[in-house]
Amino acid sequence: MENKQDCMVNFSLHFSHTHSQSECDGVFNGILQERESKKSGYYDLPFKSCALQEARAYIKENEQFLDSLSYLVIIGIGGSSLGLKAIDGMLEHLPCRNALKLVFLEHTDPLHIVKALQGVALHNALFIVISKSGTTIETSSLLKYVLERYKVLESAESKRHLLAITDKDSPLEAWAKSVKVKYFEIMPNVGGRFSILSAVGLVPLAILGFDIEALLQGAAKMTQGFFERKEEHILYKALTYAKQREHIPMNVLFSYSSLFRQFNAWYVQLWGESLGKINVNGEKVGLTPIALIGSIDQHSFLQLIVQGVRDKSVTFLSLNPAHSLKPSIPDIRIPYLESTDFVNNQSFATLLHNQRLATMQTIENEGITTDCIEVMGLCEESVGILIAYFELLTSCVGNIFEIDTYNQPGVEFGKVRLKKLFES
Amino acid sequence: MENKQDCMVNFSLHFSHTHSQSECDGVFNGILQERESKKSGYYDLPFKSCALQEARAYIKENEQFLDSLSYLVIIGIGGSSLGLKAIDGMLEHLPCRNALKLVFLEHTDPLHIVKALQGVALHNALFIVISKSGTTIETSSLLKYVLERYKVLESAESKRHLLAITDKDSPLEAWAKSVKVKYFEIMPNVGGRFSILSAVGLVPLAILGFDIEALLQGAAKMTQGFFERKEEHILYKALTYAKQREHIPMNVLFSYSSLFRQFNAWYVQLWGESLGKINVNGEKVGLTPIALIGSIDQHSFLQLIVQGVRDKSVTFLSLNPAHSLKPSIPDIRIPYLESTDFVNNQSFATLLHNQRLATMQTIENEGITTDCIEVMGLCEESVGILIAYFELLTSCVGNIFEIDTYNQPGVEFGKVRLKKLFES
Repeated sequence: MENKQDCMVNFSLHFSHTHSQSECDGVFNGILQERESKKSGYYDLPFKSCALQEARAYIKENEQFLDSLSYLVIIGIGGSSLGLKAIDGMLEHLPCRNALKLVFLEHTDPLHIVKALQGVALHNALFIVISKSGTTIETSSLLKYVLERYKVLESAESKRHLLAITDKDSPLEAWAKSVKVKYFEIMPNVGGRFSILSAVGLVPLAILGFDIEALLQGAAKMTQGFFERKEEHILYKALTYAKQREHIPMNVLFSYSSLFRQFNAWYVQLWGESLGKINVNGEKVGLTPIALIGSIDQHSFLQLIVQGVRDKSVTFLSLNPAHSLKPSIPDIRIPYLESTDFVNNQSFATLLHNQRLATMQTIENEGITTDCIEVMGLCEESVGILIAYFELLTSCVGNIFEIDTYNQPGVEFGKVRLKKLFES
Repeated sequence: MENKQDCMVNFSLHFSHTHSQSECDGVFNGILQERESKKSGYYDLPFKSCALQEARAYIKENEQFLDSLSYLVIIGIGGSSLGLKAIDGMLEHLPCRNALKLVFLEHTDPLHIVKALQGVALHNALFIVISKSGTTIETSSLLKYVLERYKVLESAESKRHLLAITDKDSPLEAWAKSVKVKYFEIMPNVGGRFSILSAVGLVPLAILGFDIEALLQGAAKMTQGFFERKEEHILYKALTYAKQREHIPMNVLFSYSSLFRQFNAWYVQLWGESLGKINVNGEKVGLTPIALIGSIDQHSFLQLIVQGVRDKSVTFLSLNPAHSLKPSIPDIRIPYLESTDFVNNQSFATLLHNQRLATMQTIENEGITTDCIEVMGLCEESVGILIAYFELLTSCVGNIFEIDTYNQPGVEFGKVRLKKLFES
């Protein structure tokens, strides 16, 4: 068992492994090369202060304006929305989070659009369109809808209600420049699902009141530790997952708190879209992410893990129960239901903690590959650690698979067909 | 290609199959025997009027009382909450749905409990505790919490604010009788995840204003059709899925509307918990359900389906675009983003519809096992059809797997460990 103790997040592998030093070195050197060759720019994001400073400058200049708003409406999909949702979902309860209602316009589902915009008016909302190119069909269509419905471009004053976050030299940037809409840049070598620590995440998170410097510091700590070989557990886990991919093609993230619901969705995209590829040998590879919430999904998915085919590994993600001491289960004896009294007087957090332990023991007992991530305190810094951890893990597996972890060619096929359907 | 046209729901299999008549007969006869032997009572639910009449009688007797409420709070987890969530999620927009806010108390997560009960007081809420036994630890703990916080048992008047739905002769029924709390019965041979058409679903759905008779009629139509051999496509699909389980262990339900989000969760439990079992030969079998929402998840999971390992089948679930004609994409040319103008003037529903078609074509083109379910109009009757369809499909696969589709022994292991953790 490998344990990585930390005051913020503890990582423990509950499986043995026999990876040689040279295997580990091979993966590590591959990642080092990716970073140095700038194949992906995400490795450097925690150490860059540019987006951080731009976000802060914008907030300082627009303090009064931002205070007058009720809604922050994000027009963006996939990598342009999932990371922000994940972080706000985990940290929304922090006292620093202001009262802005965060709304996502991403779905082309008409019922969803109508519902999402209830209460939103130009004077009470800031719209942020986030897209690497601007040509994602959901994003451009919803942008058009917002431009028409809210007359956003009518005056210099109305234009203050729209920001763009987009790639340097993208069509969206060209448009923003031409109509004098404020924009922030993403480096083109930072892919959507690895972009949360760029302006994509930092600008809206700063507007919501979060400490984005602490977020970057957490990610920097994890990233630096990895490159200083203090996080070998990531290499061990990646090698284990990659080597057993044929008989264990699914990786479950079992998160024990409703705060992790959106983080789960972020993980699913990161893992699924990065690793499902055709590799250098023309072979189709991939690992399928499955994300669950405990204890709820003990009552829907656990049976399959415990008694179904042995084709899944399980990662438990949990919060230290000291995180929320209240409420407790009252000391009430319900006649006929006395068999449940063993939890009386305990906090619900303790019950949830023990449910996670009991489930973990059950699964380990079945010989299933298990590991555990325990967040000691949920704050910007620990969230930064979690994000960098999952990104690095994904890059390591992708490196072992000999794939391009950062593209998504399979998504393009459907885009071509969609255009044809409209033209025919 | 098998097509089953219906004015309510169309089913089409986009794959060829070579199942012999005797194979189909074998599965059919197995299901017939399950029904006749009463192994599971769910087959008969659409034809029983008992729960329907009890629900209606309750509403008639309590009309004024129910009109005075603002919240319907369900204390229940897994099979006791997922079906109700699914149906309300799909039909919430119907004009017959009253304004009651539906709240679920199921999670032991302390933050979730506090949030869920904001605004809920005894005088404005009806609590319904739903459990086959009453001894599910989440349900009993949350029931205790509600009993203490809202002083529900203090008087005959306060007791009106609590109902129980539970198995005949269960501990929860014994308690409800002893404290004079109104209760409705579930037949013990109807398992939780197959119970939505019993009192478990019918009582709260009737309270919410839905036409539960039409729901049962839809399910009855599908069930009767199956037993009259008018729904052979179910047998073909079940045989295909079951036979290819070793190299296609995952079944994706790709639902193209946010209205299906909770239905997806219901499907995941039904499929996963029913089919993940040790069969009569001691072999671990199972099929893993994966539920997606389109178009959103085209930007997170599609890449893995299209270019990853060929280990998934895909079922598309969609709504006829005539379901919601508004809003539309305005006819605006955004300079530099002209490549997106091919959708201008189209409704968002048409865009979503074509996105589903384009994705389906892309996936079929890869040779992936695909089928399609199109709901022509979302109403109680079509929802009844959908529910019966998925339940029958699950039973057929379970029959081919030679498992007990209706139990969940693997979940019990964790319950024993949980008790030990508290005692130690």
